[in-house]
Amino acid sequence: GAEALPREKQVLVPPPALPEHLQVAATEAKVVEVELVIEEKQQEIAPGVNAWVMTFNGTVPGPMIVAHEGDYVEVTLKNPSTNQFVHNVDFHAATGGMGGGELTMVSPGQSVTMRFKATKAGVFVYHCAPGGSMIPWHVASGMNGAIMVLPRDGLKDENGEPVRYDRAFYIGEQDLYVLSDASGRYKSYPNLAASMADTMQQMRTLKPSHIVFNGAKGALTGPNAMEARVGEKVLFIHSQANRDTRPHLIGGHGDLVWAGGSFNDQPMTDQETWFVPGGAAVAALYEFQQPGLHAYVNHNLIEAIEFGAAAHIQVEGE
Amino acid sequence: GAEALPREKQVLVPPPALPEHLQVAATEAKVVEVELVIEEKQQEIAPGVNAWVMTFNGTVPGPMIVAHEGDYVEVTLKNPSTNQFVHNVDFHAATGGMGGGELTMVSPGQSVTMRFKATKAGVFVYHCAPGGSMIPWHVASGMNGAIMVLPRDGLKDENGEPVRYDRAFYIGEQDLYVLSDASGRYKSYPNLAASMADTMQQMRTLKPSHIVFNGAKGALTGPNAMEARVGEKVLFIHSQANRDTRPHLIGGHGDLVWAGGSFNDQPMTDQETWFVPGGAAVAALYEFQQPGLHAYVNHNLIEAIEFGAAAHIQVEGE
Amino acid sequence: GAEALPREKQVLVPPPALPEHLQVAATEAKVVEVELVIEEKQQEIAPGVNAWVMTFNGTVPGPMIVAHEGDYVEVTLKNPSTNQFVHNVDFHAATGGMGGGELTMVSPGQSVTMRFKATKAGVFVYHCAPGGSMIPWHVASGMNGAIMVLPRDGLKDENGEPVRYDRAFYIGEQDLYVLSDASGRYKSYPNLAASMADTMQQMRTLKPSHIVFNGAKGALTGPNAMEARVGEKVLFIHSQANRDTRPHLIGGHGDLVWAGGSFNDQPMTDQETWFVPGGAAVAALYEFQQPGLHAYVNHNLIEAIEFGAAAHIQVEGE
Ligand SMILES: [Cu+2]
Ligand SMILES: [Cu+2]
Ligand SMILES: [Cu+2]
Ligand SMILES: [Cu+2]
Ligand SMILES: [Cu+2]
Ligand SMILES: [Cu+2]
Ligand code: NA
Ligand code: NA
Ligand code: NA
Ligand code: NA
Ligand code: NA
Ligand code: NA
Ligand SMILES: [Zn+2]
Ligand SMILES: [Zn+2]
Ligand SMILES: [Zn+2]
Ligand SMILES: [Zn+2]
Ligand SMILES: [Zn+2]
Ligand SMILES: [Zn+2]
Ligand SMILES: [Zn+2]
Ligand SMILES: [Zn+2]
Ligand SMILES: [Zn+2]
Repeated sequence: GAEALPREKQVLVPPPALPEHLQVAATEAKVVEVELVIEEKQQEIAPGVNAWVMTFNGTVPGPMIVAHEGDYVEVTLKNPSTNQFVHNVDFHAATGGMGGGELTMVSPGQSVTMRFKATKAGVFVYHCAPGGSMIPWHVASGMNGAIMVLPRDGLKDENGEPVRYDRAFYIGEQDLYVLSDASGRYKSYPNLAASMADTMQQMRTLKPSHIVFNGAKGALTGPNAMEARVGEKVLFIHSQANRDTRPHLIGGHGDLVWAGGSFNDQPMTDQETWFVPGGAAVAALYEFQQPGLHAYVNHNLIEAIEFGAAAHIQVEGE
Repeated sequence: GAEALPREKQVLVPPPALPEHLQVAATEAKVVEVELVIEEKQQEIAPGVNAWVMTFNGTVPGPMIVAHEGDYVEVTLKNPSTNQFVHNVDFHAATGGMGGGELTMVSPGQSVTMRFKATKAGVFVYHCAPGGSMIPWHVASGMNGAIMVLPRDGLKDENGEPVRYDRAFYIGEQDLYVLSDASGRYKSYPNLAASMADTMQQMRTLKPSHIVFNGAKGALTGPNAMEARVGEKVLFIHSQANRDTRPHLIGGHGDLVWAGGSFNDQPMTDQETWFVPGGAAVAALYEFQQPGLHAYVNHNLIEAIEFGAAAHIQVEGE
Repeated sequence: GAEALPREKQVLVPPPALPEHLQVAATEAKVVEVELVIEEKQQEIAPGVNAWVMTFNGTVPGPMIVAHEGDYVEVTLKNPSTNQFVHNVDFHAATGGMGGGELTMVSPGQSVTMRFKATKAGVFVYHCAPGGSMIPWHVASGMNGAIMVLPRDGLKDENGEPVRYDRAFYIGEQDLYVLSDASGRYKSYPNLAASMADTMQQMRTLKPSHIVFNGAKGALTGPNAMEARVGEKVLFIHSQANRDTRPHLIGGHGDLVWAGGSFNDQPMTDQETWFVPGGAAVAALYEFQQPGLHAYVNHNLIEAIEFGAAAHIQVEGE
């Protein structure tokens, strides 16, 4: 059981950053404590477009959590009374109980604590799943994130040799469904509940109005670019909780790509573009060879440029 | 040749069940005889929505067939005179002759017998492919199923060790294209031929009206849930003959996933969600750890909840 | 550096053919010189539908280039003064400098030469990427192709044993976005620039009007079928620079499929259908067992038959 294990509080941070963590576990298994606070809010998802989103800890996607295979993850989920809706959280890394969804339904003003053992190594989506049409609406409104469960002895390359990363970034891709009025202008709403019927109507077309990284078009470009240095191995974790995507690093590659995000499987090598099925997180490692601006896109280039699924990495060095 | 081999008649059953079969072949290769009877019919694909479908043996998808690598499969395809259209069957497990499509064109009132050697181990789609626009129309109207060709010595895990399943389920996912009238109501038709032009019109939008498991929204939920027990290893075979999908077991995992459905390849492990390209069947094995209701979905959650691609597994035990 | 290496001019040819090449490198690394001439032109993409396309060397897709791992590829990119737009080329096989995109911007009347080292073995997309909305517009208008970088000692099968192909074909799949007028007729335009706004409007629906192999519906069917002989191993290289696809060989299989196109990874075997994420090229090998007509399709059968993504292979022998 988890009762006898040491405990560690993990301070979660906004994506694309990851919380402080060790790649190789220094100790036996422990209980990793994290807190997720639900926030329903309006967010500018593209210039001039204010959409209602639902979030874990105020960001789309929610924060990355990091544990090691065999650790327990203890999640406190808080639904402040300022929210309107019931929520919960389903961890794809968990086993049983609808991934925790059954145990974590919280009304505004409530909080709940749930614990699961991280038995599978890999990167995995978590998301709100409060039942019926609430499930796709909450997920397609931003209420999802990811957890990375590292092997206790860290990552291995295609030959089974240990491999370490110098930096890691978490890119959460989100399809959003904002309805337009007859004149083609995106509609806005006085509150979250008022947006629901229209958002569901757009969702049923299966055509997003926006596809963004980290919550907004441009959230990771220009002055918001990620940063790295020549010679660094950078781990990119990409999640999409609902809709397929295909990450690509312009001017770079997936030197190692863990298909489906599974760290105990042999990684693919030398990938130009990799694939993330809707409802999954995938990890790719690249050692930067060249300085300068690199772009990181969903390589449906219409989705990248016209819908917003593009990021930048500024690489220093020579 | 097949003439000297022993013969065995396989009694096909409606999905999600599989016909009785051995996982490890007890004998040398044999001829597995199966019968597919084509039925054009009206089916309630969602509450109040009656669509015309085309079926093998009356179900969408058609029945699972099971053989072993090296067996011959002898298919008798019957097109009763009560049908309106010419049909055939193309087996992705077969080699040459358009997968059998060339040899099996049958008009209403006719039947034909075709034999192929199952030289590739894996799970494979079969479907009607009678030429031109008839191909997508028949396939998108339900006329597809799957065959499982087991290695003679059974399945192996990621380490090459034998692995056995305690149960197996066949989930056939179907995209359907029912046109709506100006008031948003789904149209209905006096006969199959009368539905064709409208269905083709909706197909050309590439947006299904319904995406269902085993022929109807709710066909595998609530009282129709699949059943399993804690500690059982369950093999899920998922086919989609036309459109990409991404199966996910809520509260569970793909402990082993044979990508593309190929049983002689090393399986992926620990998958949260797996991928089925349109025109393929894929197999995943999960050992249930916990009792209670589990859900199994296409993890595009809009497609799962709003379009119908969701199932339940009720797990007994402790 | 590349200065001391021997040089070889590679004569590029229209797809589905590949340029003359050795499967196993006969010498140490060299510099492979190729020339890409940009041509903006009108092309009949389906009977009666004349669309404006942008091309490398006049074909959609552009020509296949072949090199070996460790070779340098030296590309001369010419933009004749008869063109209207600025273009460039981004090689997914290259490293740094936006895949070459930064170094190769050429206005009409200019030409540029760029060299990169082919450090990764596999098949990789190249495409025009001149910035902003020009990127998806140029790519979705046909301005993409592929390069094959062979291991110096050639391809290996799933057991690491050398494998040779007797023929190779390059199939480039292209999603095109021609707008229709109110009466449902495809619109036509006096020049490329005049088509841009409408094409971008259709692109933003994410629904192509046409999905074709080698530039036009029927470009590889009937009298234009590819040809092979029984007993030959044929390598099919399939690229899609923008949108996911799922190749399938009717009556055949992917005996070996290099997922993501990476030749130093162990290939998958016995695939009924394989997957190409948008922005990637993938290679599959099949040894033909039977004579007669084989079809090769994107197995979304609506896309194959109604949108144009189908080809034929005529197989001689017995
Ligand atoms: Cu919620
Ligand atoms: Cu929520
Ligand atoms: Cu048929
Ligand atoms: Cu049919
Ligand atoms: Cu261009
Ligand atoms: Cu261009
Ligand atoms: Na994952
Ligand atoms: Na490699
Ligand atoms: Na398969
Ligand atoms: Na494992
Ligand atoms: Na590739
Ligand atoms: Na094999
Ligand atoms: Zn740990
Ligand atoms: Zn799950
Ligand atoms: Zn989920
Ligand atoms: Zn058998
Ligand atoms: Zn086939
Ligand atoms: Zn097929
Ligand atoms: Zn060479
Ligand atoms: Zn690239
Ligand atoms: Zn690209």
